[in-house]
Amino acid sequence: MIIIGEKINGFIPSTLAAIESRDEEFLKNLALRQTECGADYLDICAGVEPNAERETMKWLIDLAQNTVETPLCIDSSDVEVIIDMIPHANKPGMINSISGEPGKCERILPVIADTEWNVIALTCDKDGIPTEAGKKYEIAVQIIDTVKSYGIALDRLFLDPLVTTLATTEDALTSFNEAVRMIKADYPEVHITSGLSNISFGMPFRKAINMQFLSLAMAAGMDSAIMDPMSDDMRATMYATAALIGKDENCRAYLKAYRKGLIGPKKQQ
Amino acid sequence: MIIIGEKINGFIPSTLAAIESRDEEFLKNLALRQTECGADYLDICAGVEPNAERETMKWLIDLAQNTVETPLCIDSSDVEVIIDMIPHANKPGMINSISGEPGKCERILPVIADTEWNVIALTCDKDGIPTEAGKKYEIAVQIIDTVKSYGIALDRLFLDPLVTTLATTEDALTSFNEAVRMIKADYPEVHITSGLSNISFGMPFRKAINMQFLSLAMAAGMDSAIMDPMSDDMRATMYATAALIGKDENCRAYLKAYRKGLIGPKKQQ
Repeated sequence: MIIIGEKINGFIPSTLAAIESRDEEFLKNLALRQTECGADYLDICAGVEPNAERETMKWLIDLAQNTVETPLCIDSSDVEVIIDMIPHANKPGMINSISGEPGKCERILPVIADTEWNVIALTCDKDGIPTEAGKKYEIAVQIIDTVKSYGIALDRLFLDPLVTTLATTEDALTSFNEAVRMIKADYPEVHITSGLSNISFGMPFRKAINMQFLSLAMAAGMDSAIMDPMSDDMRATMYATAALIGKDENCRAYLKAYRKGLIGPKKQQ
Repeated sequence: MIIIGEKINGFIPSTLAAIESRDEEFLKNLALRQTECGADYLDICAGVEPNAERETMKWLIDLAQNTVETPLCIDSSDVEVIIDMIPHANKPGMINSISGEPGKCERILPVIADTEWNVIALTCDKDGIPTEAGKKYEIAVQIIDTVKSYGIALDRLFLDPLVTTLATTEDALTSFNEAVRMIKADYPEVHITSGLSNISFGMPFRKAINMQFLSLAMAAGMDSAIMDPMSDDMRATMYATAALIGKDENCRAYLKAYRKGLIGPKKQQ
């Protein structure tokens, strides 16, 4: 599993408060703890008003890079902001995100084509977010074709089939998983990622739903997640599922995570 | 999901201690709490030496029946003990268990044929416990044919494809799930059940493995489990998974379980 740590995101109220008060220690701690808990990338999203976004993003990027070696995931809905931030990163990371909407692929892909940057692509287009697996797959194929046309290797692409909310769409998980299986069957080198919490929006005890979404989507072929690696429950779900579905030879990663204290009952202080 | 509460079992040390000291309150409490937590059947297994088994089983059966209305699951490796206990049950329950081993089906099935008793059947035979999905399926088909030959409806049969331990068999889950899918594809009316804890034997932090085994096996078609319904984690896993895989229309059972306090953060006292 490739883990994109989600915590440095201004859409999370506690993170926004830290961003607004320029609380460096709080944010550095998020960078450090997510890394210690296994984050492969750290998402960086300002979540502030547009005219402050560039300055805030740059500050967050510097803060993270001065704290950890973990590559960053530049997260903005504004492709121009993303492009402006790339030179500030001290190593290639990930772009979050492009999609099938006009102006996204065409603007970002030429910029990263000859680099080592990876890119997240959402399966939505000008008509919105499809709930149906076949339509998710169709947009995925269009994005894959565009990515290939820029000479970008498909293992640099992280498709996000955009899970819908279970409370309003009963087949939220099953159509997501069907899209994952269809994409992985035809393009095994493409990665599949997703945020884990949208599916439980509007439901009580969201953690239980999010955990089993992670497990069941991994079993369908999802090999990345935009998640909170500091969550004990999420880490336990991830390592246990990987061991069960044959993605962890001899349970080595599971046993190592246990020895390092990443999973298992909390040790007495 | 059809839940068989596993706690009244003398192979659990705390239960054995209560059985040996004839601690009625402890055992009644297990019957009551498992029922409150959603058990559809209560397993009754003495776990004592053979010459004390009948007397102990009868005492446990009476104790459970005097406490709750929940039907019982008569659990013994000795088919003669099972047959002797059936008249003591005040309503039809479940037999635990028969298998492909000689002498099991032939002895039990005629006794329950014209009753409403259900029966658990393990996919093992005189050659032992197969790890391979194809062999599990083969024994399942033999048992199904035998069950049918006694005129017993297949929805009274709970097949247990005998999951092996992940620590020694890397494909423990995947071969179990493959057997489940094969059986359910050809015999959709047959139930599939399993204990949840064997898979994690020899591993640290067994709960994490057991939870994701439950989730992933449910997604493959398992519709029953021999489990501890008093475990908050197991109940949360079960209700969340059922909602995600489309086995809980409009998430009604999930929401009801939340309202009843069966899942979700513990309420302040």
